Amino acid sequence: MQTIANGPGNWAYVIGPYREPVATVQPGETFAVETADAFENRIDSPDADITKLIVMPFVNPLAGPIYVDGAEKGDTLAVTIHSIDVTRDYGVSALIPEFGGLCGTVFTRTLNPPLPPRVMLHPISDGEVTFSEQLDIPTIPYEPFYGTIGTAPELEAVSSLSPGFHGGNMDAADVAPGNTVHLPVNVPGAMLHVGDGHAAQGDAEVCGVATEIPTRGVFTVDLIKGRPIATPRVESDDFIMTIGSARPMEDAARIAFYELVMWLEADYGIERLMAYQLCSQVARVRLANMVDILYSVVAKFPRRYLPRVAA
Amino acid sequence: MQTIANGPGNWAYVIGPYREPVATVQPGETFAVETADAFENRIDSPDADITKLIVMPFVNPLAGPIYVDGAEKGDTLAVTIHSIDVTRDYGVSALIPEFGGLCGTVFTRTLNPPLPPRVMLHPISDGEVTFSEQLDIPTIPYEPFYGTIGTAPELEAVSSLSPGFHGGNMDAADVAPGNTVHLPVNVPGAMLHVGDGHAAQGDAEVCGVATEIPTRGVFTVDLIKGRPIATPRVESDDFIMTIGSARPMEDAARIAFYELVMWLEADYGIERLMAYQLCSQVARVRLANMVDILYSVVAKFPRRYLPRVAA
Amino acid sequence: MQTIANGPGNWAYVIGPYREPVATVQPGETFAVETADAFENRIDSPDADITKLIVMPFVNPLAGPIYVDGAEKGDTLAVTIHSIDVTRDYGVSALIPEFGGLCGTVFTRTLNPPLPPRVMLHPISDGEVTFSEQLDIPTIPYEPFYGTIGTAPELEAVSSLSPGFHGGNMDAADVAPGNTVHLPVNVPGAMLHVGDGHAAQGDAEVCGVATEIPTRGVFTVDLIKGRPIATPRVESDDFIMTIGSARPMEDAARIAFYELVMWLEADYGIERLMAYQLCSQVARVRLANMVDILYSVVAKFPRRYLPRVAA
Amino acid sequence: MQTIANGPGNWAYVIGPYREPVATVQPGETFAVETADAFENRIDSPDADITKLIVMPFVNPLAGPIYVDGAEKGDTLAVTIHSIDVTRDYGVSALIPEFGGLCGTVFTRTLNPPLPPRVMLHPISDGEVTFSEQLDIPTIPYEPFYGTIGTAPELEAVSSLSPGFHGGNMDAADVAPGNTVHLPVNVPGAMLHVGDGHAAQGDAEVCGVATEIPTRGVFTVDLIKGRPIATPRVESDDFIMTIGSARPMEDAARIAFYELVMWLEADYGIERLMAYQLCSQVARVRLANMVDILYSVVAKFPRRYLPRVAA
Repeated sequence: MQTIANGPGNWAYVIGPYREPVATVQPGETFAVETADAFENRIDSPDADITKLIVMPFVNPLAGPIYVDGAEKGDTLAVTIHSIDVTRDYGVSALIPEFGGLCGTVFTRTLNPPLPPRVMLHPISDGEVTFSEQLDIPTIPYEPFYGTIGTAPELEAVSSLSPGFHGGNMDAADVAPGNTVHLPVNVPGAMLHVGDGHAAQGDAEVCGVATEIPTRGVFTVDLIKGRPIATPRVESDDFIMTIGSARPMEDAARIAFYELVMWLEADYGIERLMAYQLCSQVARVRLANMVDILYSVVAKFPRRYLPRVAA
Repeated sequence: MQTIANGPGNWAYVIGPYREPVATVQPGETFAVETADAFENRIDSPDADITKLIVMPFVNPLAGPIYVDGAEKGDTLAVTIHSIDVTRDYGVSALIPEFGGLCGTVFTRTLNPPLPPRVMLHPISDGEVTFSEQLDIPTIPYEPFYGTIGTAPELEAVSSLSPGFHGGNMDAADVAPGNTVHLPVNVPGAMLHVGDGHAAQGDAEVCGVATEIPTRGVFTVDLIKGRPIATPRVESDDFIMTIGSARPMEDAARIAFYELVMWLEADYGIERLMAYQLCSQVARVRLANMVDILYSVVAKFPRRYLPRVAA
Repeated sequence: MQTIANGPGNWAYVIGPYREPVATVQPGETFAVETADAFENRIDSPDADITKLIVMPFVNPLAGPIYVDGAEKGDTLAVTIHSIDVTRDYGVSALIPEFGGLCGTVFTRTLNPPLPPRVMLHPISDGEVTFSEQLDIPTIPYEPFYGTIGTAPELEAVSSLSPGFHGGNMDAADVAPGNTVHLPVNVPGAMLHVGDGHAAQGDAEVCGVATEIPTRGVFTVDLIKGRPIATPRVESDDFIMTIGSARPMEDAARIAFYELVMWLEADYGIERLMAYQLCSQVARVRLANMVDILYSVVAKFPRRYLPRVAA
Repeated sequence: MQTIANGPGNWAYVIGPYREPVATVQPGETFAVETADAFENRIDSPDADITKLIVMPFVNPLAGPIYVDGAEKGDTLAVTIHSIDVTRDYGVSALIPEFGGLCGTVFTRTLNPPLPPRVMLHPISDGEVTFSEQLDIPTIPYEPFYGTIGTAPELEAVSSLSPGFHGGNMDAADVAPGNTVHLPVNVPGAMLHVGDGHAAQGDAEVCGVATEIPTRGVFTVDLIKGRPIATPRVESDDFIMTIGSARPMEDAARIAFYELVMWLEADYGIERLMAYQLCSQVARVRLANMVDILYSVVAKFPRRYLPRVAA
């Protein structure tokens, strides 16, 4: 099994078509990828000065681009995640001034004094994350996923901090082992990027940072030829899911639900307005992030309510 | 046990301080309330013309106001819901032109042609809801809750279609049997209103309508004297929850999470920025509605991560 | 000429159908109204403690309701403003913590420390407003208008701080002498409310407060029978205007432009999509407020581009 | 005087650091640039099928990148526009399905049927634009500006359809002859792009399209060394201006006003909260666009209220 590693100093900070691929994989191939944490693995102490460590736009380093042989514009790339192993014995979270869900930011610009910076290290062992050794709360289960996964747009190079129609920094906990993520192919080779491993994350990632970890992940990629999708999709044992990323947040939800309704019509034979009315009774939603350059919302349709025989 | 019934023609269509109470209850008292469905129980056929049936602002009829003896401005009203029984053998859902999450509305005004109206009846029996007898999908469990519950603002009378700091039309499935809803008291007697029973609802209530039912609900009310809250809270066995209602949707999420963080600090001794950082790892979110006059978001903190001994 | 005065202690703090009228006027009648400033004329020193003076929800006191004889649901009330005289020799502006366009608020909830309170008095004389005697800047012309003007909704009582389809706290400088404001009639007598005089205001009213003044205004009201409008309109010598109030701000703009397009079609014979395309070339926009409970946007069509002969 | 021309087939469709410059200019140099209209000059008839002509992402072609000798990260590029001549005898506007301010879009996703496409040609002569030869309305003055002007971000390549901190597709009519536009320099040479000439445009550009023209513009560029700016600024005889681009629209307004306040403090000695309070009395706002990938708002401070002697 091929192991893909960008190596220090060679990370991607945008998802776009302009960098040379670091590796090539074949449809059907299973391979491993090594990723750094969102801070380039540079934090090893709660005393780290996060305001000095972050030098924009060089944050959220990604592995890739990975060239998928045979991928062409108009295809869909199906990425199955088999496992995500943490490659360090702790995760990192932080408060970053002017970044987060409950503070003024570069977009929601305010004159208020900023919140202070803060760094926490979270020990990880035996499948458990310790939030704090000071605060007497139970450990959090290790439930890893990739905050960022995406394919290159045709012309744009998008910050690794932003999600969008190409995937990217969605911070959706459904991008997890056992699930398959569908991404649009806009350029030859698809140019897959992945990173931003999380050992744990709350819905919304409200302070802006999850339990950030370096990882070794194992993936299989496949191509669905000539069937484009408009926005990322995820399949799990229990749900079919679509992800919308936009601001304001209602537009993220609109994109996700629109695509879910269209999927139910196209692949499961439920006429679109019927699907719309059905979603209103049984759909589930994950608010993936309320902190990134765009907000991400996952619309989830439970497989158990799919028609037993497609119409 | 007292049964409170507004009776036909006497429903409340705003939540405010201007109507005479229909009943008085004592703190600690358990009582029943009868509610009509959101369409005043006037739909008994899929051929009903929803565009004629809806005569604004006379939709979403509420039971109440219920006067809670001893309630004063600055108190919090704790409403425990014991049971919600459907009082008809079907629920109703509908598509209403210019209302819903995936269409132009009176706020998100567009020049596009509107979607067509549509009415569906959903048989309910043995704890199961049948979405459609035409579409071959499994039945949906009967999981009832009240879409609308609230107390009077001090001066405003708020449409029964709107949620807000007073509660109201939040469409949050956590307002369910077994849970306790905390609401602000702004006027003598609190003036509790309740209605909009749902037999089933997806997160976001995306088409604008759930499985709407008339109900008989059993409640106990209690007063928490002199401890005001800023926005509704819900307690369940598994979560403590706060509900924010606003537009755009990110402001609803900000309100909910801000109040959750402040609650964790005030009652559980977790300093607010630590609570903020902790929520970013373990919180859950329900997108309650993306269709009402304000959107509602429920921020949920799992009880299992509360400190074992409060600081 | 009748002078209408609510008098101290008798102001309206909501616009709704539940208060007795303070006066009755006839269609075609010219009358005067006395208004207090947004702080009930209680600030007479820059040392005033604004955080103590403001006791929610008792801010932005309005004169009215004024009963317009013969007004019925479905009519439009046309209010012509002839003059607005300031009845004090200074205006007041202020910074109010957790209120304003560039700070965390009760809706855009943040954990940042709040901005400090601050009060300024602005001398007014000879048609000039002095912003500050410390800061060496030219005087500002006295260009008065009413920040708040509205008619009662059918069932709701809306905070005097909120704009909406009923008018209210739009903070639109086009509600000025020489112009005619059209408001919907939802209840018998229309129940007109007016207040929140401003001697000067920037577009957006960015800090949340204009140069607030008590006034004596002279008005004529007329009724347009049986021609309802969906949102306030204003006519001046140079523009026909519609005002949308909503959050997010783009929805306020959508409402305003939708109604402007519909008006151009209905009254000036420009087919709606042609009117839409024409507005895209010649319309003007005023951002009236970015601080109130809803934001207000004025879409303005220059009369000079109206068809010379209606189609 | 150097004339810079990309030539057919060589337009830029993103603003980024990845393309070779088409020309180099010196600080202080005056030069001409030729631009195509937003549709690559391909529309010459109202019968053109706009839905076929638009092949995403190849719309809004830009001239450039232009390398400014000596420009380095941390500088500001000052671009003075001397003149904009239209190089064709007509402009083009259009309705584009799923694009515009009053319809469902790829972001504000709706299930409603789309609006129809439509193309109009607008004759231009003698400084006048004829909107329609069918509709009897006066001609519109030729008031040209560039809808799109920007410099390369450090790593991102941004669609020519999007505005942002780098400038881009702001559609702000203040980017006009006589004015100077300040743009951030993020990469060596600044990499200036310009295009999207408009002969006329309403505030908000509500249908999504202005009177689109090919142009020949004359510019002078200068460098302000070592003085970075956060978002574009414009100086005219009457105003100093800042432009914010974001969604929702209130965030665009927040960015613009925040930067205006900071500018008043840094360069004119008005303490920031005083400047905030002063803007609330005298600022003007242009809603530049409500249709692009981000909305753009121009906050304008009238020079006449600048302190006569800086503090």
